Amino acid sequence: MAAAVQNITLYTAKVCPYAQRTELALKEAGANYKEYQIDLSNKPEWYAPKVNPASKVPAIAYGGPDVAPDQPSPDSTKLAESLILVEFVADLFPNATFLPKDPVERAKARFFIDQVGAKFSPGYVGFVLRGESHTATLEGARAIQALLPEGKKYAIGDEFTIADIAFAPFWARLKLALDHGLGKYQPGEEKVLLEALAAPEFAKFNAYTQRLLERPSFKATWDPEHVIGVYKARFSN
Amino acid sequence: MAAAVQNITLYTAKVCPYAQRTELALKEAGANYKEYQIDLSNKPEWYAPKVNPASKVPAIAYGGPDVAPDQPSPDSTKLAESLILVEFVADLFPNATFLPKDPVERAKARFFIDQVGAKFSPGYVGFVLRGESHTATLEGARAIQALLPEGKKYAIGDEFTIADIAFAPFWARLKLALDHGLGKYQPGEEKVLLEALAAPEFAKFNAYTQRLLERPSFKATWDPEHVIGVYKARFSN
Ligand SMILES: N[C@@H](CCC(=O)N[C@@H](CS)C(=O)NCC(=O)O)C(=O)O
Ligand SMILES: N[C@@H](CCC(=O)N[C@@H](CS)C(=O)NCC(=O)O)C(=O)O
Repeated sequence: MAAAVQNITLYTAKVCPYAQRTELALKEAGANYKEYQIDLSNKPEWYAPKVNPASKVPAIAYGGPDVAPDQPSPDSTKLAESLILVEFVADLFPNATFLPKDPVERAKARFFIDQVGAKFSPGYVGFVLRGESHTATLEGARAIQALLPEGKKYAIGDEFTIADIAFAPFWARLKLALDHGLGKYQPGEEKVLLEALAAPEFAKFNAYTQRLLERPSFKATWDPEHVIGVYKARFSN
Repeated sequence: MAAAVQNITLYTAKVCPYAQRTELALKEAGANYKEYQIDLSNKPEWYAPKVNPASKVPAIAYGGPDVAPDQPSPDSTKLAESLILVEFVADLFPNATFLPKDPVERAKARFFIDQVGAKFSPGYVGFVLRGESHTATLEGARAIQALLPEGKKYAIGDEFTIADIAFAPFWARLKLALDHGLGKYQPGEEKVLLEALAAPEFAKFNAYTQRLLERPSFKATWDPEHVIGVYKARFSN
């Protein structure tokens, strides 16, 4: 059924949580691909016209001739949007286990992702990037925890799925920002949030997020030193 | 591979474009299902606690015993979010043709849907439901047209797909509102928008949207008289 997988070039940036989602999918699938880092503070002038008109990472060039990533071929298909790319990778590699085969499990995983976007990321963005109160982040963690099944390892069961892929990069960046006191929030407010999250009521959430950060595909695609550097440059004044 | 399809109950409302997406998928799949109309202005008190905590349509109760829709069983799985339900129906009925088999085609269809949400629906909501200027709607139509392939029947090619399913209900409601002068916009502004959309530059868009409204699954799930009634009640003062 599956045709041979063609050339894959990933355009990414280590700092970007959306981009890490796609990297996680590629690693979990055991894909062979070329990777090209886009410096988001100084994007190459060919990127928007030749790869992604929205000028964002992640993007994938799929198929076409084997070219250097900075000389993208018009003959490859250019695809964007992290969640679409995660599913695209799952569709290319049907043996990968991160897209559940069962329709109900699949719908549950996609619903978890919907809730990450509706209830967790906005709080994180508001707190770290815009300096709003930490309460929305705490509510977000509570909403995520409420979705977690009892006695299971990951978001929807014992398998690592697209749901975990969608959430882990955001959690990792929030935790990094808090642990290093980096972000637009009021100095000290990160301690309040860390303490609140350390409470027993978040035991299930904490066991889960710990497991996410230990996943080999996660470690292979996470460069905290680099991200700290970018956050320091962004938030230090 | 596919297990037997279990009981499907759809909770829907004729006025709701999101809900019609799920109805379109069920019709295209030739699914057998029970349908229950939720009166959005007077929702049954069991709906949020027993079917969808977000208290929105569409929702599906899947599996469990064969019960009356207004007595949902705790033994069925409750699923929500229109786009997730559309993909769920495609996963349940692998012979349905509206979810492309090819990973690239699938990614393109999902990207089209992303653009409907990012570039078309907000303009429509702003204009009809909130009385903002019509220009965002016109830009939205232009953005959709730019995605349409040349010389093909539907959003991403000659097959009717999830991309068309996601867009058609929104287009139909916009057109109905304009044709009947219903909405929060300034009286007469709908004529300006209709005229702008009738211009030759929108020929491809108009041929496409006409085809959407003629699709048998669309006609079978569209009750314009009912929607006009709801709009009249909502917008007449
Ligand atoms: N909805 C997009 C969001 C991607 C996104 O916003 N990426 C950011 C970096 S995290 C970006 O490339 N922004 C453009 C820029 O920084 O110029 C996705 O899910 O892929
Ligand atoms: N994101 C949801 C949106 C569904 C939605 O907003 N449905 C509306 C009707 S169109 C609803 O049920 N609103 C709740 C209400 O009217 O009380 C989806 O795609 O299913």
